[in-house]
Amino acid sequence: MSTYDDIRNAARVLDGVARRTPMLTSPFLDEMAGRRVLVKAECLQHTGSFKYRGASYAISQLPEGTRGVIAYSSGNHAQGVAAAAARAGLSAVIVMPANSPALKIDNTRALGAEVVLYDRATEDREAIGARLADARGLTLIKPYDNPHVIAGQGTTGLEIAEQAAEYGVSQADVAVCCGGGGLTSGIALALAGSAPGFRARPCEPHAFDDVTRSLASGRIERNATMLGSICDAIVTPQPGDLTFPIMVAHCGPGVVVTDDECLDAMKHAFLRLKLVLEPGGAAALAAVLFHADAFEGDAVIAVTTGGNVDPEMFDRALARP
Amino acid sequence: MSTYDDIRNAARVLDGVARRTPMLTSPFLDEMAGRRVLVKAECLQHTGSFKYRGASYAISQLPEGTRGVIAYSSGNHAQGVAAAAARAGLSAVIVMPANSPALKIDNTRALGAEVVLYDRATEDREAIGARLADARGLTLIKPYDNPHVIAGQGTTGLEIAEQAAEYGVSQADVAVCCGGGGLTSGIALALAGSAPGFRARPCEPHAFDDVTRSLASGRIERNATMLGSICDAIVTPQPGDLTFPIMVAHCGPGVVVTDDECLDAMKHAFLRLKLVLEPGGAAALAAVLFHADAFEGDAVIAVTTGGNVDPEMFDRALARP
Repeated sequence: MSTYDDIRNAARVLDGVARRTPMLTSPFLDEMAGRRVLVKAECLQHTGSFKYRGASYAISQLPEGTRGVIAYSSGNHAQGVAAAAARAGLSAVIVMPANSPALKIDNTRALGAEVVLYDRATEDREAIGARLADARGLTLIKPYDNPHVIAGQGTTGLEIAEQAAEYGVSQADVAVCCGGGGLTSGIALALAGSAPGFRARPCEPHAFDDVTRSLASGRIERNATMLGSICDAIVTPQPGDLTFPIMVAHCGPGVVVTDDECLDAMKHAFLRLKLVLEPGGAAALAAVLFHADAFEGDAVIAVTTGGNVDPEMFDRALARP
Repeated sequence: MSTYDDIRNAARVLDGVARRTPMLTSPFLDEMAGRRVLVKAECLQHTGSFKYRGASYAISQLPEGTRGVIAYSSGNHAQGVAAAAARAGLSAVIVMPANSPALKIDNTRALGAEVVLYDRATEDREAIGARLADARGLTLIKPYDNPHVIAGQGTTGLEIAEQAAEYGVSQADVAVCCGGGGLTSGIALALAGSAPGFRARPCEPHAFDDVTRSLASGRIERNATMLGSICDAIVTPQPGDLTFPIMVAHCGPGVVVTDDECLDAMKHAFLRLKLVLEPGGAAALAAVLFHADAFEGDAVIAVTTGGNVDPEMFDRALARP
């Protein structure tokens, strides 16, 4: 189980490695949300998403003599692991669906990883991964159900508490784009330990609200499908075994947003903050802007978690009225 | 004449007022430029451009009893003055061309300023401004030929020197998008005083390279026209009377880029940095990426100065191959 001390240790290890991303504001967003809005711009992290934090810390904690790492991912975790492994001088193999966006495959390769493609319809990525891990002696880095990954992502929460204090904010809901819950649980733990006036709130796409439903029912609920949302970065089958108990202990209720609301939030981030967000990285901002009733208090913090979006999808957001 | 001490004083006044914008990097940009590239993301400044710094400092130095301020601008200086005046509790009048982008007019109004529109073809903005200033007792804030404005913009240079040192860079050319030279001269002064290993390099659009030509000839040269570039933020008739001598004393040669290179730099900032740039705010990055021969040394710093771009223009950048 991850602890607050793990997150403090991760912050020490990641100092000078991960970027301390800025906290941004805009009077236009304040007006839309009807309260003060602070935006933690984690899309400006190395590799364009928060994933670099958890990957870097997890890799830093591997035993000496580790020969290399392997990960499954079609996007942000892939790039985070590839960049973190390259920095540590370890080889990385990333198992990716053959139909992943070409840009994401190219980026992962350009960051130094070996990409192994598989056919999503007919092949099992876990079997391929297990075979490769076994044959080459590679260590699997799971995207969220890994205590070091959770602790690494949690360093975002420490920064949020410090940066919000600089704005004079010591009490607020913290909206977090949520897939398997690695970032959400890490932030929740960090806030519980360092800033008790803050409360993490998972934000999910409509029909992929497994965490929201699981928190409501008190047990792990699954999504009916993995297909049909543009928020690919945060579509996961169910909350993680490690992340869920942390979220139960420390998070407020989930907030559900539509794909169109994510596109609109992307456009507002473009206009008001000069940030590029991907749909899944805009869910928390969408919740803050378009579901004000779901939050309490005079201020709210939105964590914009990633910006790895294709031009075509970004055009869709800009074309919104 | 502005001095290094003025910039130090501006930094004290702007502490907690202007945002300390981040310095970003990407291995992909390093590879394109053939050297280490640091990007000072000044598009993340309040109001989406560096102009907020100079406007805020100039307004802070007005004598007590000042009744209000007035400025001429179709874009970034307008928003900077409007926001800075509102923060200082002063009224602001901005004289803008009636054919300015609706978004920029709306933003300037939303930031609390009174917008006075004029017909660019038949009316003289200076006459309108002088009449209003006189009738209402308003103080004019010029966009660059004002020593306090230069000092305020120069605080960017102090941050550049400090942040580059954190990256272990103590010697580099600093590429700056250049219009009238307020930011360029301010940064040049700041670097001369705090970081002698750095040298400011003005970057300008093709056919609007008045500063580049003026630095080459040693006297102020004018552009033949004000029309025809997409880099509206940095199209000015000629270098300023106050900014030019500073640039002569402290800047290296200018670098000229094409509109298409600016669009391509916008696309790379989108893909690699998750930043929204406007064409004129991308000129320095374009110079660094596409005119590597114009720079010397192992590292180069690009100041991305603004992100106030309409969706249609941004689409043009994303559509580039």
